Amino acid sequence: MSATVDTLTVELGARSYPIVIGAGVLCDAALVGRCVRARDVLIVSNTTVAPLYLESLQSALRPRRTIATLLPDGESHKTLDTVARIVDVLVANRFGRDCAVLALGGGVVGDMAGFAAAIYQRGVSFVQAPTTLLAQVDSAVGGKTGVNHPGGKNLIGAFHQPAAVLADTATLSTLPPRELRAGLAEVLKYGLIHDGKFFDWIEGHAAALLAGEPSALAHIIRRSCEIKAAIVAQDEREHAERALLNLGHTFGHAIESAAGYGRWLHGEAVGAGMAMAARMSFESGWLGRTDLDRVLRLIEHLDLPTRVADLTPEALLQHMRIDKKVLEGRIRLVLLRAIGTAFVTAEYDEAPLRRTLDAHLG
Amino acid sequence: MSATVDTLTVELGARSYPIVIGAGVLCDAALVGRCVRARDVLIVSNTTVAPLYLESLQSALRPRRTIATLLPDGESHKTLDTVARIVDVLVANRFGRDCAVLALGGGVVGDMAGFAAAIYQRGVSFVQAPTTLLAQVDSAVGGKTGVNHPGGKNLIGAFHQPAAVLADTATLSTLPPRELRAGLAEVLKYGLIHDGKFFDWIEGHAAALLAGEPSALAHIIRRSCEIKAAIVAQDEREHAERALLNLGHTFGHAIESAAGYGRWLHGEAVGAGMAMAARMSFESGWLGRTDLDRVLRLIEHLDLPTRVADLTPEALLQHMRIDKKVLEGRIRLVLLRAIGTAFVTAEYDEAPLRRTLDAHLG
Repeated sequence: MSATVDTLTVELGARSYPIVIGAGVLCDAALVGRCVRARDVLIVSNTTVAPLYLESLQSALRPRRTIATLLPDGESHKTLDTVARIVDVLVANRFGRDCAVLALGGGVVGDMAGFAAAIYQRGVSFVQAPTTLLAQVDSAVGGKTGVNHPGGKNLIGAFHQPAAVLADTATLSTLPPRELRAGLAEVLKYGLIHDGKFFDWIEGHAAALLAGEPSALAHIIRRSCEIKAAIVAQDEREHAERALLNLGHTFGHAIESAAGYGRWLHGEAVGAGMAMAARMSFESGWLGRTDLDRVLRLIEHLDLPTRVADLTPEALLQHMRIDKKVLEGRIRLVLLRAIGTAFVTAEYDEAPLRRTLDAHLG
Repeated sequence: MSATVDTLTVELGARSYPIVIGAGVLCDAALVGRCVRARDVLIVSNTTVAPLYLESLQSALRPRRTIATLLPDGESHKTLDTVARIVDVLVANRFGRDCAVLALGGGVVGDMAGFAAAIYQRGVSFVQAPTTLLAQVDSAVGGKTGVNHPGGKNLIGAFHQPAAVLADTATLSTLPPRELRAGLAEVLKYGLIHDGKFFDWIEGHAAALLAGEPSALAHIIRRSCEIKAAIVAQDEREHAERALLNLGHTFGHAIESAAGYGRWLHGEAVGAGMAMAARMSFESGWLGRTDLDRVLRLIEHLDLPTRVADLTPEALLQHMRIDKKVLEGRIRLVLLRAIGTAFVTAEYDEAPLRRTLDAHLG
């Protein structure tokens, strides 16, 4: 069924798992069968994605017993209440500890289905079938699951690694352009924190990526997953270098939370957040002017926002203070020394932060 | 402050933690300080326990910042909604990832506070200060946290080990006799599954235990924690022998759930459940008549129920089928070969199960 299938492994000892990347992998019954061992499978999807891919996935899962539950689409529904509804479906269908939960959709579906799998019967098997670029390059890999709280993004959740990630690149052909761009923000992040050459490559192929050219997308998905898998294998629980993956996220989460969940796509907020992190790095004297300009130019070139019009510095700071990266009352930031080199610090001056907020807000 | 303090260790590698047992340990500032490292501590308690012990615990925790949240007392409140309220308090007080949650109370408080700690910011530090016999000998040790679902006991939860267990035996002096008896059911369980000599000891000291004699209680708390710590160290996630700790629990959970949470104390339901497990073991030909009689006699002697008057076999079976120990549609039971030797099986006949239900229900 699928022409080329690429498999990476997230190395976590007994909990290692494959990331399978290719066009059509969700229709490949043999492959899906190897990745989903359970006899009872709850497919969690949403009202946008299910009409496109649910039926063929259910075919590929035969003869397993599959039940589907469809969530409303969008970040504003990523709540503990929605997860409770998923658990209700598991209980109502008498799914046992040996069942699996499969997430078919983007990051919101994956985060909630994964969290439901983490807490149902203290943890059941979980499989990710991401259908957005953002989920394929980032949120489906690494085991972070959870929901938002009115007070902050992802404040409730669990680490629960999937048993497999099935990234079907054919699903990107139906992805709205705005969602594609939001995914490119997270791709750009890997270049910024880990691989300057990858940043160069994205810079050189921005037009092909924005046009959804399959071979360009296949390249960035593979390279992004490679980088993420390596970082997660080193630091599963984010005690150290995994925190670098949060570049742009402290600003970004605060933007999403302050604006009200659902108004910004997560990737858009991360795009603006990375612009702010780069500016803050420059204003603090850590990043050169040329690098700052290249970062801002590429974010704009990818048609992602670098400014937030209707937000004051005070409102943003208030939302930043409840972020998970606050330690002993200090907001920790991921900043850049160069394109390809990031670091985490709580040791920065207030003046450059203020100049950064003034430059990108209001 | 405390005359004798006994310390055991739950050996879990980097996540090993102490169980500190003694009269007055919660008032011992030096000891409490060693066990609670965080600067910000949320104390979760209930409206029954807090008036007795909260103030002295807060003194012992100085100069840490402590916030207390009091839950309504009882199993009927052990829900996801109540856990969400605990998380609200953490967010409202801007507690960071470096905070700790401390459970001051019985099993219900510990299960919910632990689950809140497990899911807040994907896991923060957790300390158990159990004030009931049941919590001191069982639920505070081993990292099982969670809440009930209308469809079944503890169907939602997480494994989240505490950083320390502070079992202050002085708190048992204020424990209602009914709660003391409920705790003795779990103590009896350790004898039945693991240590026939311990069963003999309980048999010989039942009167002292029911009278709340401190040295008798100290002995059973220590021995129960030793057995539980050893089993948890061997099988943290209940892939094998930890399941033996569920003796009486498949029947017991179904009794609690069918009767409506709060009508039976957990330990009472486990008492009746162990009577049924012993009967089922006898009816299946695995346990001798003498042992069955000794088990039933001791449960009765401890003033615990062995029968459930207002429940039909059909109603109980329906609730048993959603228990976490159901695998591939088969209800797995923990049964006895002798006093001190238990095993898990899904291979049993329906006739002895029916005779067991008929003997103990209706």
